[in-house]
Amino acid sequence: MPASASTALLTDMYELTMLDAALHHGTEGRRAVFEVFGRRFPATRRFGVVAGTGRILEALERFEFSSDQIDWLHDQRIVSDEALDYLRGFRFSGSIDGYAEGECYFSGSPLLTVESTFAECTLLETLLLSILNHDCAVASAASRMTIAAHGRPCVDMGARRAHERSAVSAARAAVIGGFGGTSDLEAAKRYGIHPIGTAAHAFTLLHSSEREAFDAQIALLGTGTTLLVDTYDVTEGVRNAVEAARAAGGELGCVRIDSGDLVAQAFRVRGQLDAMGATTTKITVTNDLDEYAIAALGAAPIDSYGVGTRLVTGSGVPTAALVYKMVACEGPDGRTRGVAKKSESKSTVAGRKTAGRVFDADGYASEELLVAGGTPEEGLAELKRQGARPLQVPLVRAGQIDAAAWSPEALQTAQERHLRSRNELPYQAWRLSEGEAAIPTRYAALS
Amino acid sequence: MPASASTALLTDMYELTMLDAALHHGTEGRRAVFEVFGRRFPATRRFGVVAGTGRILEALERFEFSSDQIDWLHDQRIVSDEALDYLRGFRFSGSIDGYAEGECYFSGSPLLTVESTFAECTLLETLLLSILNHDCAVASAASRMTIAAHGRPCVDMGARRAHERSAVSAARAAVIGGFGGTSDLEAAKRYGIHPIGTAAHAFTLLHSSEREAFDAQIALLGTGTTLLVDTYDVTEGVRNAVEAARAAGGELGCVRIDSGDLVAQAFRVRGQLDAMGATTTKITVTNDLDEYAIAALGAAPIDSYGVGTRLVTGSGVPTAALVYKMVACEGPDGRTRGVAKKSESKSTVAGRKTAGRVFDADGYASEELLVAGGTPEEGLAELKRQGARPLQVPLVRAGQIDAAAWSPEALQTAQERHLRSRNELPYQAWRLSEGEAAIPTRYAALS
Repeated sequence: MPASASTALLTDMYELTMLDAALHHGTEGRRAVFEVFGRRFPATRRFGVVAGTGRILEALERFEFSSDQIDWLHDQRIVSDEALDYLRGFRFSGSIDGYAEGECYFSGSPLLTVESTFAECTLLETLLLSILNHDCAVASAASRMTIAAHGRPCVDMGARRAHERSAVSAARAAVIGGFGGTSDLEAAKRYGIHPIGTAAHAFTLLHSSEREAFDAQIALLGTGTTLLVDTYDVTEGVRNAVEAARAAGGELGCVRIDSGDLVAQAFRVRGQLDAMGATTTKITVTNDLDEYAIAALGAAPIDSYGVGTRLVTGSGVPTAALVYKMVACEGPDGRTRGVAKKSESKSTVAGRKTAGRVFDADGYASEELLVAGGTPEEGLAELKRQGARPLQVPLVRAGQIDAAAWSPEALQTAQERHLRSRNELPYQAWRLSEGEAAIPTRYAALS
Repeated sequence: MPASASTALLTDMYELTMLDAALHHGTEGRRAVFEVFGRRFPATRRFGVVAGTGRILEALERFEFSSDQIDWLHDQRIVSDEALDYLRGFRFSGSIDGYAEGECYFSGSPLLTVESTFAECTLLETLLLSILNHDCAVASAASRMTIAAHGRPCVDMGARRAHERSAVSAARAAVIGGFGGTSDLEAAKRYGIHPIGTAAHAFTLLHSSEREAFDAQIALLGTGTTLLVDTYDVTEGVRNAVEAARAAGGELGCVRIDSGDLVAQAFRVRGQLDAMGATTTKITVTNDLDEYAIAALGAAPIDSYGVGTRLVTGSGVPTAALVYKMVACEGPDGRTRGVAKKSESKSTVAGRKTAGRVFDADGYASEELLVAGGTPEEGLAELKRQGARPLQVPLVRAGQIDAAAWSPEALQTAQERHLRSRNELPYQAWRLSEGEAAIPTRYAALS
């Protein structure tokens, strides 16, 4: 394994210091349960979308310390030799359960439940949070955009406005939120996402005339391609585009507008296309769209949306603000009990949660039910008693990773799961305006 | 080179389609000049900070298409066989000039100038923008935070709130903006940044009592460590912390507060520490800080700041919104001339820019001067004539990358350069409030 492929140092230093202190004190082996959850949503999020679970399993597969990394930890004196011995052979050997990718989540929902020794649980904290905080933020924004698009296709074009590697993950998260394609080739290759893209303004500027540029593009890509018509003058551009396609013996597939007042432009361009008889030629728009802009374009004759900046930056919410907290641990007496932090404004609910969704008589979700304490079996029995649909699935068992959870097929399944889960939510979930979470969270304690 | 180490597919599909169409049409070899610049700042940015140049050079070194990638492009029919032949042996052979890392930039500043064939310039677009848009956004936010901190150290603790790989780059960008350390081990290792971190709330919860947890941490890390005092009750926590250190024969190094009203807590904790005689024990705070919170804490007895979410998400501006535009290209007659896009609200200034900073009589920067058109030599002569300090440095020459620009030493140099560059700006640059850019940009055209 090349050093760079290891995910083990994508970790805050204090995870290793805590491990070291626990080893030193003999407490590292105590059984513990940690949960990943969010305390509350910002007002613009009525629900969250779980994304990143598949990437976590892939990253966990590569969570091993290379000799190069061990040497560096030693040279920097980050941890003691005892800790280095522990890390040298480290493989996570515990269990992880979690919400399946695509599932909607709410305040307190345990997106992941990690159970192992204190040391093992601690080492994973930063990596799990980094992945989920990014991917859930993007998937949640994507879902709002696909709601606003009302079935018109949305595609990701945000690579240039995000870190080059997070862009790859953002494309994947966007698919979970309902997007249909990406401009990012690495994402397309790695995750089997439909790749999209034709040409930029520079291609038109390269040629002596717009028409020459359009001819060149059509010669290669055929008349079904998408021509960018706003480099100079849109009306002229549309005429050139349609004529170039007809000169090549076909009707143009699509025109793209990337600037100006998109509503007005779309009506004008549609009118012009129709007047030219190019009634099958579609219109796609791409200028700084977000869910609000997409909603405002709902009445305009537009066929699809290319979304960039606002998608990959989470449309105002660039991180999901999920935290990773210990909710139960073994005491010196060998008994495991719930634990909770009491600090002002950051308190946590003790005990492992078994999570379910409760539905009303019309079949709409009405509550996120979190049964705190007890064994998972007792929790499931309580969910059943209360008629709730269980939400957690096994992801890792005794260190064995469910590889199927990060296949390309799993990504499609996650998109379908999200649409189903979203469709179960009450009407207020679909509103773009600020407000409360679509459903409340209720805690039930097992005695 | 392992497939994953290649940066060649961190690219929008349309870059390859344009290359393909240009090859097909025989225009791919035309000489072109592209510039990276920002059109305008959001109101909360008085200046931008250049960061990411070093990472670009590193990424460029690995911008090669592996056979695996070529096979995928072929299987997906993304481009023609002719284009695949071109890509198979691709190495960037042109020149890149740019602002040195750490330099402040303004509206229109050409952060990078790429000169080569149209095909080569096009292929780099997405990667250059991804890196700069992320890194400049974080460095610019970091700089505002270090301004607000007035010399008190700021350290990065944001890894968990960012994509796991962008967190590594964010730590690097934060150093350029004046930060002094990072919790992210991969960043510390890769870029030689000072690693920081001790323990989280879970470590306290693991033990039978807070005091036992503190004893365990001090036993390993010594009394100079930082103890987190707000798991249960802060007053109790501070007493436990000081007593634990004294029981181990020393005075405690630092306490960390991570919740509640930090101003009030800092005064209370400082008073308590002083009353206990622990006058050398420092206070660090870490709860959702941004430049405004840091400024508000300026009068409180705090010794350092740990910044997370708001740093790695660019404190409200998660992307620098830089664009990459062709400003000159060779025509069919072999002559190179300036080109510009005329679309509404997205127009560009034609011609290669030579950039300089003009200073007033007091030695403060007064203008960003961009000389458009002409050769670099002519541009430099004009800058000299107008008394401006030239801002561009050579980064790549005939494909040869200046490796010194991405060494760990270069990162320290960039931090020092930034502080110098920021100190040259007029007073309004230092204001956190909304407003105009600290200095205006003036274009001068060479005939």
